[in-house]
Amino acid sequence: MAFVKGHGTENDFVVLPDLDDRLVLTPALVTVICDRHGGLGADGVLRVAPNPTGSAAPWLMDYRNADGSIAEMCGNGIRVFARYLVDAGLAMPGEVAIETRSGVRLVRLGSTGDVTVDLGPFQRPEVGPVRIRIGQRGWAAVAVRMPNPHLVAFVEHLDDAGDLRAAPAIDPPTAAPDGANVELVVRRGPGHIAMRVYERGVGETRSCGTGAAAAAIAAAYDAGELPSSSPIDVRVDVPGGALVVTVHPTGTADLTGPAVLVARGTLDEAWLAARTLAAVRSSGG
Amino acid sequence: MAFVKGHGTENDFVVLPDLDDRLVLTPALVTVICDRHGGLGADGVLRVAPNPTGSAAPWLMDYRNADGSIAEMCGNGIRVFARYLVDAGLAMPGEVAIETRSGVRLVRLGSTGDVTVDLGPFQRPEVGPVRIRIGQRGWAAVAVRMPNPHLVAFVEHLDDAGDLRAAPAIDPPTAAPDGANVELVVRRGPGHIAMRVYERGVGETRSCGTGAAAAAIAAAYDAGELPSSSPIDVRVDVPGGALVVTVHPTGTADLTGPAVLVARGTLDEAWLAARTLAAVRSSGG
Repeated sequence: MAFVKGHGTENDFVVLPDLDDRLVLTPALVTVICDRHGGLGADGVLRVAPNPTGSAAPWLMDYRNADGSIAEMCGNGIRVFARYLVDAGLAMPGEVAIETRSGVRLVRLGSTGDVTVDLGPFQRPEVGPVRIRIGQRGWAAVAVRMPNPHLVAFVEHLDDAGDLRAAPAIDPPTAAPDGANVELVVRRGPGHIAMRVYERGVGETRSCGTGAAAAAIAAAYDAGELPSSSPIDVRVDVPGGALVVTVHPTGTADLTGPAVLVARGTLDEAWLAARTLAAVRSSGG
Repeated sequence: MAFVKGHGTENDFVVLPDLDDRLVLTPALVTVICDRHGGLGADGVLRVAPNPTGSAAPWLMDYRNADGSIAEMCGNGIRVFARYLVDAGLAMPGEVAIETRSGVRLVRLGSTGDVTVDLGPFQRPEVGPVRIRIGQRGWAAVAVRMPNPHLVAFVEHLDDAGDLRAAPAIDPPTAAPDGANVELVVRRGPGHIAMRVYERGVGETRSCGTGAAAAAIAAAYDAGELPSSSPIDVRVDVPGGALVVTVHPTGTADLTGPAVLVARGTLDEAWLAARTLAAVRSSGG
């Protein structure tokens, strides 16, 4: 099974080219591949599949979290996915349309350098007062959909959240019935924030693209910089690097930053078969 | 640059075949490759180099920790190294001699299955009373050289050591002037222990081969099972699986367990050049 390993601001992915749509991507297979010690290791898998929808985008990004669960979109993942398409000759530099579970997304990139994705429209749903809790500490949070659910909390220091190993509690849970990614944000200056993120199904990661956008939007509204009649840029520092979020007056957001391919090769078939079987058995599946 | 990723009880390594001895393995290069989010990710690198010593072993295991530092030996690493040699056709199944910084080591393996390494003679140096300290807690420890330095502490529960993120303090420091790997051990039954390990230059790992041997030896002496006129087996459960340590009356130890190759491919040369340069610059080197 062929793979490419890549990352965007250290949010890392195993890309699995499956141009003939033959691969059955079970949760067991995903968890075995993403295991950081027993497998190859990544925050998630990006299967490159033919687009079954008939839209103008030739390729579907079939994205899975490290625990095997399905996610709607991934802002860093799609930038790595686009970099892979151009690198492999499956798309030309310029504007690339990619099918996702949230619909078609447009990505802009050259043959090298930063990659920009149009994350599409965001919403600020009215969920009433909501708090996130980590250990003994709690903060008010703002809900943003990008379109996956995010809760953004402004904290005094990024280390206030401690080691962020367990999922933050959401109060009331009905504010995020499917769970949410949680962003902890501090302001660095005008148009400049820094954040940590806890991703549903993954844990704390070095970066989350839709999370950076959600944090930037929440911060810009909070500071009165939005709404605006012209696009505004927000620099978002994440543990794995820096991203720029551009919020458009139309209510959409672009995400710009590095997307790097690190290695390519094949996964050992005998190992994969044995480990996947063991994973299925141990989960009783 | 070609690589193979493999692990022994989840102690994982990037194998770099360098059969022509052309690769300059700088600390910056090792840290970039071993970075678990921005690179490929591993506990260490195993360069496969021609043996310069003129001994009967054709290949040298040039082992580096994830932080780029040099280590004498690695009990799981050499088993993965041997599995690679057989897999790549560089050695025949049976008994394989491998040059290391601790001298020649003999490894026994079939074309599949477990791999046994003769770790050679151990010593129990007389260092006087020594304690290791983690946060507010401390335990008496026993020194074992395998031949790399280990300190073995018997604890009540493996989670007594907390998250084991920082290096345990050694008191007095003169008991381990070059530092030591620290094993925290509980007894599971006759000939059966479980342990966690903090490796010098790496942090807590899922397994450490020489550490398992040191822990087995310390436990067997402590229980009066050693000295013995016949070989004794100790099963050592580690977070990443199970190993068997065989202690011989001659004062040497064998280590047996799985060694698995997971993936193979090439590292991106442009990425590697850019990242290695950045790492050298940021370290002021």
